[in-house]
Amino acid sequence: MREVDIVGVGITPFGKRRDTSLRSLAADAMTAAIADAGLVAGDIGLLVSGNAMAGVLTGQEMIRGQVAATEAGLAAVPVLNVENACTSSSSAVHVALAAIRSGMYDTVLVCGAEKMTGLPTQTVLDAMTSGADIERIPEVTRELTGTDKVESFFMAVYAEMTRAYQERSGATPEDLADVAVKNSAHGALNPNAQYRRALSRDEVLAARLVAPPLTTLMCSPIADGAAALVLRAADRGNSGRAPVRIRACALGSGVPGAGAPAIPLERRTAEAAYAEAGVGPEDLDVVEVHDAASPNELIMYEELGLCGAGEGPKLLASGATSLGGRVPVNPDGGLVSRGHPVGATGCAQLVELVTQLRGRAGERQVSGARIGLAENAGGYLHPDPAACTVTILAGAGA
Amino acid sequence: MREVDIVGVGITPFGKRRDTSLRSLAADAMTAAIADAGLVAGDIGLLVSGNAMAGVLTGQEMIRGQVAATEAGLAAVPVLNVENACTSSSSAVHVALAAIRSGMYDTVLVCGAEKMTGLPTQTVLDAMTSGADIERIPEVTRELTGTDKVESFFMAVYAEMTRAYQERSGATPEDLADVAVKNSAHGALNPNAQYRRALSRDEVLAARLVAPPLTTLMCSPIADGAAALVLRAADRGNSGRAPVRIRACALGSGVPGAGAPAIPLERRTAEAAYAEAGVGPEDLDVVEVHDAASPNELIMYEELGLCGAGEGPKLLASGATSLGGRVPVNPDGGLVSRGHPVGATGCAQLVELVTQLRGRAGERQVSGARIGLAENAGGYLHPDPAACTVTILAGAGA
Repeated sequence: MREVDIVGVGITPFGKRRDTSLRSLAADAMTAAIADAGLVAGDIGLLVSGNAMAGVLTGQEMIRGQVAATEAGLAAVPVLNVENACTSSSSAVHVALAAIRSGMYDTVLVCGAEKMTGLPTQTVLDAMTSGADIERIPEVTRELTGTDKVESFFMAVYAEMTRAYQERSGATPEDLADVAVKNSAHGALNPNAQYRRALSRDEVLAARLVAPPLTTLMCSPIADGAAALVLRAADRGNSGRAPVRIRACALGSGVPGAGAPAIPLERRTAEAAYAEAGVGPEDLDVVEVHDAASPNELIMYEELGLCGAGEGPKLLASGATSLGGRVPVNPDGGLVSRGHPVGATGCAQLVELVTQLRGRAGERQVSGARIGLAENAGGYLHPDPAACTVTILAGAGA
Repeated sequence: MREVDIVGVGITPFGKRRDTSLRSLAADAMTAAIADAGLVAGDIGLLVSGNAMAGVLTGQEMIRGQVAATEAGLAAVPVLNVENACTSSSSAVHVALAAIRSGMYDTVLVCGAEKMTGLPTQTVLDAMTSGADIERIPEVTRELTGTDKVESFFMAVYAEMTRAYQERSGATPEDLADVAVKNSAHGALNPNAQYRRALSRDEVLAARLVAPPLTTLMCSPIADGAAALVLRAADRGNSGRAPVRIRACALGSGVPGAGAPAIPLERRTAEAAYAEAGVGPEDLDVVEVHDAASPNELIMYEELGLCGAGEGPKLLASGATSLGGRVPVNPDGGLVSRGHPVGATGCAQLVELVTQLRGRAGERQVSGARIGLAENAGGYLHPDPAACTVTILAGAGA
């Protein structure tokens, strides 16, 4: 298959960007990515735009990518709009990769963007439920919580996953909090992170309970932001910048109900990505995982094969996944500290990996990073997520 | 590039399907397409789902394809959700084609579906405006109509295009009506069409004016429906069915405002498709065009090169584009008679072409059809549509 590189990245600061529109966020990220690639608008053959919520939040459905493209001076570039809940923009990367490998395009821009602030919090939380089968939400809510109404459907889901994980691993509330502590320290080193203050374990545990055992400081915040990548066929040259090779981008979808496989979707997808890339968990230097709630990072350690079953808390406590450790996870702060503008997260994870693999991550640089992996899950079909991608990138030295 | 065939098609009856849900419509079409291909669910490597409006109409955004896949017994098949206004499901075909040409997948299911009835008409018409840049709608409405409020934004757009076309071509109201007359006669032969009664010119002209010169009988109706295609690499064999080769599937996006090229998006996209397929308009045996309003078919005759500038009415009057003529256009009734469930239309056009190229179109068969073209435009950026695909298919004898 034709080899494909990421030759440019762009990202906006994440957080509450009250005076900035969705289209403007997306345009900023796209413009930065094209400039970083040393290219110009006319070099872009296709834009694949990932957004999850603008249809329900703003009424701008159908042509979100075209609207952003116009804002960025990219009108006339063919546009595909891709949606896959929290996995929207890494799914867009999957499409872009196919588009280049097919020979139909040489250079493809991918942008993930989301604008969530400026609306009542409950409106946003309700809109998030469209990442689940809306006809099954009452039934799933009752099954998970024994009640009919929850503050946040998705945090109720993550709380239940966390409780099940605690049962099988013995993880303590302190273990759960320590994920947030680690990632807040990472986020403090990331100029684009929504939260840049290192938290203490006590602070995390003392914060308001959203869905036991999750406190607010273990939950990804409502955020605005955008991130973009330029993908280019390796046979077209790398326009002088440090290219990062896409070694795999596996896409999976979940199975609802009793028919769901015993192996979770994230592990199934990771196994496909490892096979495609010809690497294993022992080869990874830096990892991004989808910690929409902090404890999920412990679960992902196990599903990605970074440690054995039940060993998540031990791996965390060893410092292996902290900056300076053997395989730092979420060096940019992850979803909880960097922020989680839903449609932007998949691209944001890859922007971080590229930055690390190029050796340009400044204070949060993972020394000698050559191979990175990003896991990005989205939506919920009970018990599986609705979608998952696992992407493996390799820097120039790998 | 790897050759790709359409090896199976499925379509539901179009119309007011009040007791049928979006997921059920999609599942029916997908199940039929897989069976038509002589395949089973386990053969499908990827589902690309096209829908335009469910996010704003029902709140089910983000994972519409997964919900439909579950209904169809396709859970666990990786899903990509693609949106591009009225061009959604042909854009999904573009993605599927890239996915197979890339070597990442061998067999890809594409489904376009929309559920528009069961809601107040004005709600649906308002939702349609999300196919335009919602921030520019007041400005564009005023520029097109001189007023602030119109019954249907898109019919106001088509009315303005029609008036401009009449000025440059001399097309009369009777010419405009005759498109609807022809297509209603075609639709009468299509068991899946929403309207199956041949109309007279007088009826069409006497119907209620929606936006002058368009009467209701020149406007595509609100409809429910779904259509699906199975695409498969030619090197994987055709599972015993009559395969139809995809010779081109070009995707373009529009340019708003004064920067728009003098050549309309549909012509630019058609030229790209002709170049890719190595055929010209003179090679076409059967054509589907996006007649969201009937007069647009006359404009498309010219943009696709079926006749010269200003010759649309003459071509229509000659009978060349009627069944039995040299190059029948919209043999299934087109958007106005077949119905226009927005996200389904792109696939529905291709289902019709495949049916024709296989020689299985029954009473509406185009004799000896070997090469077909479908033009599918969507959304509006003023003056260009937001998106356009032109797909060229070739039957076994071509």
